[in-house]
Amino acid sequence: MNEAAPGPFGPVRPSTTSRGELRPAGRFRVEGGLWAERLEVNREVTVPLGPERLEEAGNLDNFRLAAGGGSGAYQGPLFSDSDVYKWLEAVAWEQGREPSAQLGGLQRSMTRLVASAQSPDGYLDTFYQCHPERSRLTELTFGHELYCAGHLFQAAVAARRATGDTELLEVSGRFASHLADVFGPEGRQGVPGHPEVEMALVELYREVGDPRFLRLASYFVDARGNRLLAPEHFDSPYFQDHLPVRKATTPEGHAVRALYLAAGAADVASETNDVDLLDALALQWGNMVASKTYLTGGLGSRWEGEAFGDPFELPPDLAYCETCAAIGSVMWSWRMLLATGNPSYADLIERTMLNAVLAGVSLDGTRFAYVNPLQVRSAGEQVSERSAGYGRRAWFGCACCPANVMRTLSSFEHYFATSSPRGVQLQQFAPGALAAPTPAGPVALAVRTDYPWDGEIEVEVLDAPSGRWELSIRAPGWCDNPSATLRDGSELELSGGYLRAERAWSAGDRVGVRLPMPPRRTRADRRVDAVRGCAALERGPLVYCFEGTDLPPGADLDRIVSADGPITTTQLPWLSAGAVGLRVAARFPDPDPGLYRPSTVEPLTGGGTEVHLGTVPYFAWGNRELGPMRVWVPEA
Amino acid sequence: MNEAAPGPFGPVRPSTTSRGELRPAGRFRVEGGLWAERLEVNREVTVPLGPERLEEAGNLDNFRLAAGGGSGAYQGPLFSDSDVYKWLEAVAWEQGREPSAQLGGLQRSMTRLVASAQSPDGYLDTFYQCHPERSRLTELTFGHELYCAGHLFQAAVAARRATGDTELLEVSGRFASHLADVFGPEGRQGVPGHPEVEMALVELYREVGDPRFLRLASYFVDARGNRLLAPEHFDSPYFQDHLPVRKATTPEGHAVRALYLAAGAADVASETNDVDLLDALALQWGNMVASKTYLTGGLGSRWEGEAFGDPFELPPDLAYCETCAAIGSVMWSWRMLLATGNPSYADLIERTMLNAVLAGVSLDGTRFAYVNPLQVRSAGEQVSERSAGYGRRAWFGCACCPANVMRTLSSFEHYFATSSPRGVQLQQFAPGALAAPTPAGPVALAVRTDYPWDGEIEVEVLDAPSGRWELSIRAPGWCDNPSATLRDGSELELSGGYLRAERAWSAGDRVGVRLPMPPRRTRADRRVDAVRGCAALERGPLVYCFEGTDLPPGADLDRIVSADGPITTTQLPWLSAGAVGLRVAARFPDPDPGLYRPSTVEPLTGGGTEVHLGTVPYFAWGNRELGPMRVWVPEA
Repeated sequence: MNEAAPGPFGPVRPSTTSRGELRPAGRFRVEGGLWAERLEVNREVTVPLGPERLEEAGNLDNFRLAAGGGSGAYQGPLFSDSDVYKWLEAVAWEQGREPSAQLGGLQRSMTRLVASAQSPDGYLDTFYQCHPERSRLTELTFGHELYCAGHLFQAAVAARRATGDTELLEVSGRFASHLADVFGPEGRQGVPGHPEVEMALVELYREVGDPRFLRLASYFVDARGNRLLAPEHFDSPYFQDHLPVRKATTPEGHAVRALYLAAGAADVASETNDVDLLDALALQWGNMVASKTYLTGGLGSRWEGEAFGDPFELPPDLAYCETCAAIGSVMWSWRMLLATGNPSYADLIERTMLNAVLAGVSLDGTRFAYVNPLQVRSAGEQVSERSAGYGRRAWFGCACCPANVMRTLSSFEHYFATSSPRGVQLQQFAPGALAAPTPAGPVALAVRTDYPWDGEIEVEVLDAPSGRWELSIRAPGWCDNPSATLRDGSELELSGGYLRAERAWSAGDRVGVRLPMPPRRTRADRRVDAVRGCAALERGPLVYCFEGTDLPPGADLDRIVSADGPITTTQLPWLSAGAVGLRVAARFPDPDPGLYRPSTVEPLTGGGTEVHLGTVPYFAWGNRELGPMRVWVPEA
Repeated sequence: MNEAAPGPFGPVRPSTTSRGELRPAGRFRVEGGLWAERLEVNREVTVPLGPERLEEAGNLDNFRLAAGGGSGAYQGPLFSDSDVYKWLEAVAWEQGREPSAQLGGLQRSMTRLVASAQSPDGYLDTFYQCHPERSRLTELTFGHELYCAGHLFQAAVAARRATGDTELLEVSGRFASHLADVFGPEGRQGVPGHPEVEMALVELYREVGDPRFLRLASYFVDARGNRLLAPEHFDSPYFQDHLPVRKATTPEGHAVRALYLAAGAADVASETNDVDLLDALALQWGNMVASKTYLTGGLGSRWEGEAFGDPFELPPDLAYCETCAAIGSVMWSWRMLLATGNPSYADLIERTMLNAVLAGVSLDGTRFAYVNPLQVRSAGEQVSERSAGYGRRAWFGCACCPANVMRTLSSFEHYFATSSPRGVQLQQFAPGALAAPTPAGPVALAVRTDYPWDGEIEVEVLDAPSGRWELSIRAPGWCDNPSATLRDGSELELSGGYLRAERAWSAGDRVGVRLPMPPRRTRADRRVDAVRGCAALERGPLVYCFEGTDLPPGADLDRIVSADGPITTTQLPWLSAGAVGLRVAARFPDPDPGLYRPSTVEPLTGGGTEVHLGTVPYFAWGNRELGPMRVWVPEA
């Protein structure tokens, strides 16, 4: 392997000349609590499953075939290569967290396999290499070559940044050069049906400095929306080709495609100092959050084309909420946070990671969710393998989500903190430590907390540069009355969504942050028809849900009414030692008199039974006996 | 052409030995009003469009190719033949209604084309004939050969019954004999992935008397649900192979497949006198109506696998409600009505035809709906060609619905009346005349009414057999206080869902039926989360909807609140001379304070504007300026 010195950088490393209020502050070392448990399961169970599943599904055989060393036919969907690349990205970040001989061996052999399949001209896509009768880099609507290329580039950048290994980076450079030769204003006009290569090309540019890669990413962002793609099976909004990125006011069409495109466009805007593009993206993000986002952070209401719905079209039961869309949202929000410094982006990252993304994998790390509705009416056999009525599954025919969860969890420590010329911003909370190379000099922090189970957070300065700098701690949007106090009793200022203090920090300085998290009921805009008159239970950044397995015999979760009574907390040892559940009085009224009735016929009132029911964090649903589940329940 | 004498029979003709409380009473000649308008547009505009659309889409070229006389490649989905057969069925019923030289010419040439493509062994499926490398009658999960065969048989039966032409019947007999040679308990074990051939084989048996066809239908019904189909892309419930028909308690999985299967099973039960099977079907139908049916009669909540949802999973906006599913429901209900005499089945036929099926075609007859949600939040470009946000469309890549609407409207007059040893039952209402060959002798009735715009119906006996017999008029389930009076002032008895009078009827006897239809508000079971706290406006058998085009500037249909005030009627001349609309006071309150809010933050109350708004029958939505539409609106 070719190796260079690894650095502290994560999936996104804006270049020094890029526009951006904040910079990534490097990896926060999570050292306990919920996130440590989830990252540990990902590392010890989920990521090691990858090679086995990829072997079973034929993804690796496709590379052997393309390299000329295999037999048989290409297997799986035509974007199967991307699953391999996502796994390689995950294992790279894990090797950066702590080298493992076992993972390293798997990583090396899979890297070699990938490299061996590359064509002399730099091209690499095993589907097209195994189908020489098909035309390369022209079937852009559904071909997915550029999508797969993007995941290759991201894996390569991860390997370089986390471990110093440059073998995939060289493969990527050759492929990206080939792409730059083929596409562009003076070359072939076209954009990929599935965005992904845009952000990957920018990151490759950031890593190797070749300006052609940034120019190609810019071209792909700007050319899109001009109907260069011939619609196939779906119409233009599915392919994000209905409207130029700069003219869109809200994300539409296929949710994952929309979000990946937005992330790539944010990268282009950052590197090209394109304020107009950034403003357009901020407007789209704002409208998404204001009218198209599930309470969990889940995105994409529709099974139809895996698409965003119309504003306020957010039914819990028929929600699609693909795991990959939640991941796309995190990627986009992180880039917007860096560009603008607005902590609302970090709020959405927190909500999405703790609810929509974590729900995508079982607590034991072996099973995955493709869709993540907020209500499952009945479990059992379904028409589609993706249906949440099956609970989570070992793998999928279209297995985009599992390895996407792996790489997201493996790199998540890079999303905790940012820095700026003013200082350091703590964006996410877990016990652990940060060593940040800030503009002012190296800063080291220790964080002690039971967050998200508890809102008390102690931040200790372990090492500080000389002179004054600002320590900022995000004040989460869910929190009514955040506060933070220094040991001398002085309060941090709440300003712009952060608790801030600028001073000459010394090692040993401690900040006590209080984010009170009483259980609360949340209601939705009345235009969200499906949850009108309902409330959801939340505590801190966590959304809670009712599960059928907690119901008394004969009770029907479809008929639950959650009364206005007090919500109490309880322990959920099966989830985690510190996990907090919520309990509430709920009523199961008598049935209505028929599916439809004249308004002159009143439903039966009163009657039914009242019980005290436990709820669990949404991300943990379906980890005990599989059955019905719901987040929103009618109020009495 | 080989011709025999046409008879009065429609799509379903139970044999004399079959089990059944009622028999079809023959064609009711619709002579005015809404149904005459709709049937006329179907005959004059929609059916004549068929050959042109089928030519453009390549369906007819496929037959030329299979016959050895064409060039090029097979076009369209692998079930394209069925569209041709459905059109041939439609035109046959039209020729039975009134011969047309133009339609007759088209019918003859298309019939010849179909016959010319048949293989010497009787096999006929142009996809497989054009793909000799594929194995015939073995790719049962998705092959659709038996589905196409079923539509061929139904077209052949229609041609024989309506016009006496037997050319397609001979083609069908040869193909069905081939199928009977291949499949069955002693032959190849297997069932079709898409039911349809079951009811067609029974009808072919009824027409030509070959008991092998009934046995094969019985085999397909009984073998199903035993996992004979290898799941492909979807899981077993999609293919109706998860549970034997006799063991199912509710329709599940792909809605059209479920409903076609149920219709075929009802035919088998009728011809084999199988009470257990009939009881199972009645239970399934009852549970469908009690928990899985939209107010319009639409069925199949999910885009995911075009499937029935769980009980009470009936969101208006994400509803699929395929036009073909509504048609399948009508076919099933008609068979259950004949088997049991229970007028609830005719109630659902009425609701479904007037709302869910009629919505499937534009008023001008040129455009078609694939899906029929009860709410469209915004019109415009969509991810899927099927989406209701496009409004109705000229044709579809998968064009199952348009020709299905054609044949359903062309044969609908056969669904109006039934007979039994006791007499004649009028099941549906329109101005027109019936000449029914009842067991007691020929009965002729004239019906005068503006139904469904008005609830006054006069039924006059034009011709009656000697002796006493019972005239029964369905008392619709939607009507609170139906009544009927003879000219001598005596009231018909309301019993078992019919207004009945047994007497020695004479020509000139008249019955005045009153079905009061004040506008009414309808509410749903609270388990239908998406319409909790909402009401829908109905009048008689018609469901009404609000359309964006009727809103004042700036008003947002997503925020409409329909107040409790009186509902008044109005005229809708653009729809029809007698068409009745409803008007109601509606309010548009001020926006809520954000997508999600703590329950401690109250939404703004009061404010907003109140206007009087017109509503239109649901089936007529989207025939003026295309825009948002909704059936259910919150109550104040």
